[in-house]
Amino acid sequence: MRHKDPHPPVERLVLTDVMAALSDPLRIGVVRLLADERERTFGEFDAPVAKSTLSHHLRTLRAAGVTRTREEGTRCYVRLRRADLEARFPGLLDAVLAAAGRDAVGDRIRLQAEG
Amino acid sequence: MRHKDPHPPVERLVLTDVMAALSDPLRIGVVRLLADERERTFGEFDAPVAKSTLSHHLRTLRAAGVTRTREEGTRCYVRLRRADLEARFPGLLDAVLAAAGRDAVGDRIRLQAEG
Repeated sequence: MRHKDPHPPVERLVLTDVMAALSDPLRIGVVRLLADERERTFGEFDAPVAKSTLSHHLRTLRAAGVTRTREEGTRCYVRLRRADLEARFPGLLDAVLAAAGRDAVGDRIRLQAEG
Repeated sequence: MRHKDPHPPVERLVLTDVMAALSDPLRIGVVRLLADERERTFGEFDAPVAKSTLSHHLRTLRAAGVTRTREEGTRCYVRLRRADLEARFPGLLDAVLAAAGRDAVGDRIRLQAEG
């Protein structure tokens, strides 16, 4: 039996859930790092918080429909649901990303330097 | 001695505070009712919550810099800081208002029918 899909479908995205998900600097930082629409592994994020805290934030983003995550083997992958967000809430993500970029919101989370 | 101004100045508006303030249906409803930029008295709002709850939401909006309130005699007045929000976070408020309008977010708060 498969787990229930934890991702809300695009037509069920809820504005207040997305706003709440995007009201935290670390979560905004994750979204900024995913803005190029490349899929990333959880391990690629270099954040000044415990791994469990980062996981919690990633679950919050997923539950609100901001990101889509998948497991493959022992790795978790995450990407931004940019098209879904744009379809439901036109202009919202771009406005948040632009403001966050100007104010350096979420700059404390980065991608690991490539080895 | 005057009270300290409880309104953050425009240059101090914080993206995550504004996002959090706009993550609640009732607060979004208030903002929608203020979108025409008319000043309203607190008493004009007809909300399905206790007056103390409404007051709390109005304080949250003020503290985030979304609204400006003033007292005159026994009345409190509130208006949207639309220009300030647009200056700091271009496009954000319009995106939220458009999405909220489409999804009827905050429709449970209204203006009192005029007598």
